[in-house]
Amino acid sequence: MAADKPVTIFNLLSEIPEHSPDEQFTALLERPGIRIERIVSWGHATPDDAPYDQPNDEWVMLVEGAARIWIEGQDEIALSAGDHLLIPAHRRHRVTWTSPEGPTVWLAVHIGSPDER
Amino acid sequence: MAADKPVTIFNLLSEIPEHSPDEQFTALLERPGIRIERIVSWGHATPDDAPYDQPNDEWVMLVEGAARIWIEGQDEIALSAGDHLLIPAHRRHRVTWTSPEGPTVWLAVHIGSPDER
Repeated sequence: MAADKPVTIFNLLSEIPEHSPDEQFTALLERPGIRIERIVSWGHATPDDAPYDQPNDEWVMLVEGAARIWIEGQDEIALSAGDHLLIPAHRRHRVTWTSPEGPTVWLAVHIGSPDER
Repeated sequence: MAADKPVTIFNLLSEIPEHSPDEQFTALLERPGIRIERIVSWGHATPDDAPYDQPNDEWVMLVEGAARIWIEGQDEIALSAGDHLLIPAHRRHRVTWTSPEGPTVWLAVHIGSPDER
């Protein structure tokens, strides 16, 4: 299989965008039923009046940085590197705080059929 | 939705098993067509005569530690924290080295229909 397309190595922590008005979303892999993406926050938070309400389950890990998250029906939770959670579809949630000191890098895996997205 | 089952936070870098004869595999999420797992290596390598030859695509990221990987048709590659790659189904590969100094923690996302596994 030496003639196959070479496998390329990327790094989640490289090419971190500068601080910007919006969080930065980068798709790493898109397939039917799955999308893996990097999210870079830098002092960003989800607006109080606009929680996420997603049609698909999302598995998410904080890779670098620090954040707090609110999930409907629960107390606010502080997250640090390595913390991961599964946010069920339509469970409303907000990122209430991310560190203003530097980038917070998330890895998100969105799970579901593409028809649902 | 306050009555929904609470979302639990886990940490990928906690409860790292002690060094053991074998690599440690922990399923984090299993769904039709997707399995997310943590792999902990500690000086382990894939035997020369038993490369991986997997029926499904695998997206994998080295989260902590250091490793080298051989992928059929390519030169050996050194991996460090944050490096990620997509290993296509049936692309033979071997982890040729992982640091003996401490745990190397991988996050793997196996992609494919459960019928293929």
